[in-house]
Amino acid sequence: MKYYVGIDFGGTGIKVGIIDEKGNILIKDSFVTDPRKSGNEIVEHIAECTKKVINDSKLPQEHILGIGIGSPGLLNPETGQLKIVTNIPNLNGVYLTKGISDRLNKPAFLDNDVNAMSLGEFYYGAGKGKKNVIALTLGTGVGGGIILNGELYRGSTFTAGEIGHMSIARDGKYCGCGNYGCLERYVGKDGIIERFEMYRSKGIETSIDAYLEDGKVTPKAIALAAAKGDKISIEVLKETGEILGHAIATLVNILNPEMIIIGGGISNAGELLMEPVRTGMLKHAYTIPAAAVEIVRAQLGNDAGLVGSASLAVANLK
Amino acid sequence: MKYYVGIDFGGTGIKVGIIDEKGNILIKDSFVTDPRKSGNEIVEHIAECTKKVINDSKLPQEHILGIGIGSPGLLNPETGQLKIVTNIPNLNGVYLTKGISDRLNKPAFLDNDVNAMSLGEFYYGAGKGKKNVIALTLGTGVGGGIILNGELYRGSTFTAGEIGHMSIARDGKYCGCGNYGCLERYVGKDGIIERFEMYRSKGIETSIDAYLEDGKVTPKAIALAAAKGDKISIEVLKETGEILGHAIATLVNILNPEMIIIGGGISNAGELLMEPVRTGMLKHAYTIPAAAVEIVRAQLGNDAGLVGSASLAVANLK
Repeated sequence: MKYYVGIDFGGTGIKVGIIDEKGNILIKDSFVTDPRKSGNEIVEHIAECTKKVINDSKLPQEHILGIGIGSPGLLNPETGQLKIVTNIPNLNGVYLTKGISDRLNKPAFLDNDVNAMSLGEFYYGAGKGKKNVIALTLGTGVGGGIILNGELYRGSTFTAGEIGHMSIARDGKYCGCGNYGCLERYVGKDGIIERFEMYRSKGIETSIDAYLEDGKVTPKAIALAAAKGDKISIEVLKETGEILGHAIATLVNILNPEMIIIGGGISNAGELLMEPVRTGMLKHAYTIPAAAVEIVRAQLGNDAGLVGSASLAVANLK
Repeated sequence: MKYYVGIDFGGTGIKVGIIDEKGNILIKDSFVTDPRKSGNEIVEHIAECTKKVINDSKLPQEHILGIGIGSPGLLNPETGQLKIVTNIPNLNGVYLTKGISDRLNKPAFLDNDVNAMSLGEFYYGAGKGKKNVIALTLGTGVGGGIILNGELYRGSTFTAGEIGHMSIARDGKYCGCGNYGCLERYVGKDGIIERFEMYRSKGIETSIDAYLEDGKVTPKAIALAAAKGDKISIEVLKETGEILGHAIATLVNILNPEMIIIGGGISNAGELLMEPVRTGMLKHAYTIPAAAVEIVRAQLGNDAGLVGSASLAVANLK
């Protein structure tokens, strides 16, 4: 048997786990990162956490082939260097794969968390057996991972798949990134909430109050209310889906993928979101590639980050 | 030395040529196709024309490694079968590469003309030495060819790069393809002329009459008038460029290429078009990939089709 370690590295914590060749998680654990420590100390800590999980697993060392690390922020997957880690600036510039690899005597591989999750869905989730797949993750931002001819496509400066910053309107909403009409402004968390509030301000009745999180409207609350028939929420999901479908049509026209995988919070709304996504795609995509693509929900759920991170090792070692 | 034959196959004629390893055309000739002949007869004719050029070249047979064929319409580059050849329906369903390869005893390779031209620019034109390049061809339609990691990317059903049918506006102009807001409707020949006529109908003075082709406004006439300072024409190029730049921003965000190459009739307008293209791209693209991409004009000009077709053989045989 072959095993792969995944390190799902986030702003506040680290999840470490080990998967087998079928993508099953055999063991997992989570740890808290202290962003005030030095870069070197944080790397040391990540290595210690990883050693602990490996030891706890009692798996034979020699069958654990390598380590994949998924990280937020900007990084260089070829050199394994972190560039900008939003919540942990002490890690900026650190060669994370070298630090981990040296301490654990196993090859380590780094990529951004969205690419990692996309690869996880491709190997072990909804995209199993496909060749050309694009995975979208809807959350505060909108991330994308592109797998072409069976391999992650990273682009010339490793920013391929910035689907959240695809501009869908020439004179569209201003985005924090400095540009106009970015998809993220329409189907990211804030865009979805803005759309909801726009309808509510018109005095349309809503049952959203029963689903608030900490007293606030969130995409999750909207998805829950919609599932119970809340009209505004259903309409918000419909519009969100259609806009997303329009953007997906562009991906379909350009890249002619077999499958688009949609994950992240709002995707839990299920068909109330997915059906308008397909409608929007069909309205705007060219007939042949439109007929060739499936649009489906992500399958790995909460484990997507961990399985995805381990997949980075799989991709490099298989 | 290694030589490659290119067959640039169009609705009304065939161009056949031979290039050397540097992409220089050593010989070329052109022939007329009779679309009323049977599929088999047309293939026979193409083979005869090709034999003639090979013989005329007096190059040693064994150094001519293979044949690349660029064709309009729908086709399958893997099987070498033509699917829908718009102006020559008798060729629909014909296995062109087998027909040519059997008759000339050399390996033959088929792809659509836009992919061929893109590959030509990649190997021997503006894209030389790059890895990730997108080439756009502006004409009646807008075509695109995508080269990623040094190879032509074709997609799951060989329609990748349908950039003309990227939808740039959610409730945009209706397109003949059945969808809305297709880029082609804005920056293709008809879209450019519509924009010109819209300005002229407002009574703005123009010197276009000095540049008409067969008494008609064309993108070429607009480019010529603009070069001589015609205000409407300059404005039309500016708007066309900015819209194209917006669409290119999406390509930049998704694929993070090193270079975008723009060819086809209207690209002859030069900086009057290219500068607004860059402005439009920078306004809508994400900062990092925007900084990493060059937008340049195609270099192969009238020979793009021939060199491109031969490049299909290069790609498969090098």
